Amino acid sequence: VEQALGERLPAADTEPARLHAAMRYCVLSGGKRVRPLLLFGSCRAVGLSEAQVEAAACAVELAHAYSLVHDDLPAMDDAELRSGQPSCHRAYDEGTAVLVGDALQSLAFQLLASDAALPVEPAIRLRLTELLAEAIGASGMAGGQALDVATRDQRRPGADIEAMYARRTGALIRASVLMAAACAPEAAAHLREALGAFATPLGLAFQIQDDLLNASSHAGTGGETPRPDRASRGRAAYPAVLGLAAAQQRVRLLHSQALDALRPFGAGADPLRGLAEWLLVRST
Amino acid sequence: VEQALGERLPAADTEPARLHAAMRYCVLSGGKRVRPLLLFGSCRAVGLSEAQVEAAACAVELAHAYSLVHDDLPAMDDAELRSGQPSCHRAYDEGTAVLVGDALQSLAFQLLASDAALPVEPAIRLRLTELLAEAIGASGMAGGQALDVATRDQRRPGADIEAMYARRTGALIRASVLMAAACAPEAAAHLREALGAFATPLGLAFQIQDDLLNASSHAGTGGETPRPDRASRGRAAYPAVLGLAAAQQRVRLLHSQALDALRPFGAGADPLRGLAEWLLVRST
Repeated sequence: VEQALGERLPAADTEPARLHAAMRYCVLSGGKRVRPLLLFGSCRAVGLSEAQVEAAACAVELAHAYSLVHDDLPAMDDAELRSGQPSCHRAYDEGTAVLVGDALQSLAFQLLASDAALPVEPAIRLRLTELLAEAIGASGMAGGQALDVATRDQRRPGADIEAMYARRTGALIRASVLMAAACAPEAAAHLREALGAFATPLGLAFQIQDDLLNASSHAGTGGETPRPDRASRGRAAYPAVLGLAAAQQRVRLLHSQALDALRPFGAGADPLRGLAEWLLVRST
Repeated sequence: VEQALGERLPAADTEPARLHAAMRYCVLSGGKRVRPLLLFGSCRAVGLSEAQVEAAACAVELAHAYSLVHDDLPAMDDAELRSGQPSCHRAYDEGTAVLVGDALQSLAFQLLASDAALPVEPAIRLRLTELLAEAIGASGMAGGQALDVATRDQRRPGADIEAMYARRTGALIRASVLMAAACAPEAAAHLREALGAFATPLGLAFQIQDDLLNASSHAGTGGETPRPDRASRGRAAYPAVLGLAAAQQRVRLLHSQALDALRPFGAGADPLRGLAEWLLVRST
């Protein structure tokens, strides 16, 4: 994924060099690459190879990277750090950070439309484009972030937070899995549906686990070095509302729902099972 | 265009209502709709009806609208007004303005991928997606804005400003025309090429004419009510560098180049000729 992303980002020695350098800085400075890995794992489950969906994996990661750059802006989460390094608007400047996010989003769609290393039919490329656009737009990620910002200082019921998480984090996680399913139209319908049933609880559990890690990070350090994630700033984040024990229990329940959904698969879904374990039992 | 845009924007009474309302505010508060009109005019030239490309016309206008919302941000042009009304971040807030631009970009791609009122083959939809993505990304509009912001306080040669304008404004203007050509694969190749040859000088002339209007607006009002366009803030905008007379002469030359490119067309290109006249001889 690192190499595939590096090859597709514009070169830092071509104009506009500062924008290009900032785009590379924001995408190539690390990250767990959760969404590409889920896309790859889902491909394995339906019998595709990673090479066939490399461009789509880059597209979902670019979309995720763009959202982090914009979420970190002073007008949003005002995060100074991202993955332990200065956030884009701190390393460069705020105007550049806005444009970096904008250009990363465009590049994601450009890959789906025209990347040579995506050997699928035009109708499937269009379906991938549609899945990504729906997942990150007003009905998905951007809408979820808007809901989060609007209600962050309020005390929200757990169900409202879950509905917001489903958009803010869950939609792109789910799209990453569904995009793999879309690339395998010959796979049995019940298997492609099973991937959707896997992705929804996984995306939600992933975000609650993130909250839990933020909460324990705060507790362990006296709040001095919070993880620079917007969830850590939400005063009504999930564990704060429902309590740590209830949040942990919710992650375990969602985890088992996700694994149950994978039952129709054989060993081909083992990478996905491993990913779910890694994501939901992780400590960083 | 107004009606088509209104139908495709999310309803202001569904959640996230504030984001949806802000999206509608930014797109439906007026504007000349230059890019949809150019797309419609180009369609007429190659024998298509407006109805066939309505969704594509909306996509280019949404992409333009997103760029205005982000360009107006305090970190960029810090514009208080847009078309005589408070800019998005003034009418709402800065975080909402970032998300509005993001969601408008996603919606533009969503329309190209899946809008039901775009009766073209999947391969053509993909070509439209590719044209839009290239036009607004790092190699197009976002890159041009980055170049502009980076060099705005410097004294730039006219050729550098033109190269920047070709990206910042020209790329989306050109894409609007080329998207129409892409929808008519049965049209003769030389006609589709002629549309490209029309679009490039037109896009450049349009931006220089904008500069001229800004310059005369400043001169006429003592700078009290400058038109809220980023070009009006560029200390090295085209007329300031080359002088008013040279800028006017450049617009006339580009205008005649654009009209020359339309010679292969008959009366079908009269709407385009009229648009060029309107855009380049306009006073507002």
